[in-house]
Amino acid sequence: MNILVTLNTNYIKPLRVMLWSLFFNNPDQHFNIYLLHSSMTDEDIDGLYLYISQYGHKLFTTRVQAGDFDDAPLALHYSKEMYYRLLAYKFLSVDMDRILYLDPDILIINPIRELYDTQLVNHLYAAAYHNAISVKEINRFRLRAYEMEEYYNSGVLLMNLALQRKKIIEKDIYLYIDRYRNRLLLPDQDILNALYSKDIIRIDEFKYNYDTRYYHYTKLISNGIMDMEYVMHNSAILHFCGKKKPWKDHYSGVFYSLYKHYEMLASRNGFHSV
Amino acid sequence: MNILVTLNTNYIKPLRVMLWSLFFNNPDQHFNIYLLHSSMTDEDIDGLYLYISQYGHKLFTTRVQAGDFDDAPLALHYSKEMYYRLLAYKFLSVDMDRILYLDPDILIINPIRELYDTQLVNHLYAAAYHNAISVKEINRFRLRAYEMEEYYNSGVLLMNLALQRKKIIEKDIYLYIDRYRNRLLLPDQDILNALYSKDIIRIDEFKYNYDTRYYHYTKLISNGIMDMEYVMHNSAILHFCGKKKPWKDHYSGVFYSLYKHYEMLASRNGFHSV
Repeated sequence: MNILVTLNTNYIKPLRVMLWSLFFNNPDQHFNIYLLHSSMTDEDIDGLYLYISQYGHKLFTTRVQAGDFDDAPLALHYSKEMYYRLLAYKFLSVDMDRILYLDPDILIINPIRELYDTQLVNHLYAAAYHNAISVKEINRFRLRAYEMEEYYNSGVLLMNLALQRKKIIEKDIYLYIDRYRNRLLLPDQDILNALYSKDIIRIDEFKYNYDTRYYHYTKLISNGIMDMEYVMHNSAILHFCGKKKPWKDHYSGVFYSLYKHYEMLASRNGFHSV
Repeated sequence: MNILVTLNTNYIKPLRVMLWSLFFNNPDQHFNIYLLHSSMTDEDIDGLYLYISQYGHKLFTTRVQAGDFDDAPLALHYSKEMYYRLLAYKFLSVDMDRILYLDPDILIINPIRELYDTQLVNHLYAAAYHNAISVKEINRFRLRAYEMEEYYNSGVLLMNLALQRKKIIEKDIYLYIDRYRNRLLLPDQDILNALYSKDIIRIDEFKYNYDTRYYHYTKLISNGIMDMEYVMHNSAILHFCGKKKPWKDHYSGVFYSLYKHYEMLASRNGFHSV
């Protein structure tokens, strides 16, 4: 499977935890990890390369150059890294048809092969729609994108690269940012939704992009069906959305002990098999 | 390492989870699991045998017979299984010097070799002292055992079998029960403390018998040092003490997600190694 990650140095530790959980819970899969970055040091990259190799997987890195987004508008509150996810197809081999983007604030706790094999047909992306009504309404207003049907979370994003090369036009993205730059809160996610929501095929959010903040709420509205037992057996991707992150002090979410245990496991060398 | 477990059919599932966590987090160790029981079916035993064998470890079972405790007094509120832990030496090979008893309501999250190799010298047991003052005072009064110095938890108990064969007299235990039968709440633990507390060497409770109920309290009294990061790296044995158990519905402790994840992993076949 091809996995895309885009990050800066601050996220290396969570990235390792995410990758460890991915490898551990998908033992019969081979992964090619593609890292798009601009600020990572050679030392960081070498460390990551060794880390990934020891589990039998491959790392490919691309340092995005200053000139790569020459036409991009400047906006104070976000960096060029925001474009990486949307324009990844520019930096990947033209032979590659499909890649799965994953945020680093994620734990993979079950197999994801089925997600990876999702039929994309004539869709640009597959993503999960975070189904909180308030979020939807707020975003609809904020973005003034009346054509927008859904609000997709861009943390887990299966990409139809072949189609993106044909349909995504860099200039459209820049024009959109220029017009709405004061209203964009989560730039790449907002753009994804405003420009491409009709081209996104929806995946099960509870299975592949479980928002860990809403465990109690989700359990409640499902009449208790989506309890911890259910999540552990049915969710493949836990997404630690929001500002509070489980690798920081004073976090106290429901999945804290699980995350910290994975963090410890990822810091051990290798898997512990018999 | 020799591991002792004593249980009835109701605890088979937690036992599997405990064993999975033991094997997974002690990958370079070989385990001989000794099971003392009286009520398990052949089917249960066969299933457990296969389960343990697939990880390369061994299971030995002993069905305790009705006549094995003929001199024991009858007491309404506890079964004969309460004696198994205290009189295990009777049922194990005379060649065996040492065994580690483990409760099934436990998760092993780090190596335990150091615990197993604890110098016992002239002590009968090694155990952790659960250091809540109120518990200590209550128990001291309840048991009328004024010579009792500490209140040890019997859920993790390293046994000096060679010395036990010489020093533990079955009759003493029966006499004690006969005298205090109305005051015993946790029979085997109470007897252990009342009769043998002077013969117990103390092990680090936070390392080898971490009471999961007191995470917040422990963090508080340690000025934040014993936070989740600390527990994950320093505790080897998490003990889900108390009536509320993480395999039951509506449990909500701090280590719930971790336990349920291990439960799921234990239900998969084999380890997922690369």
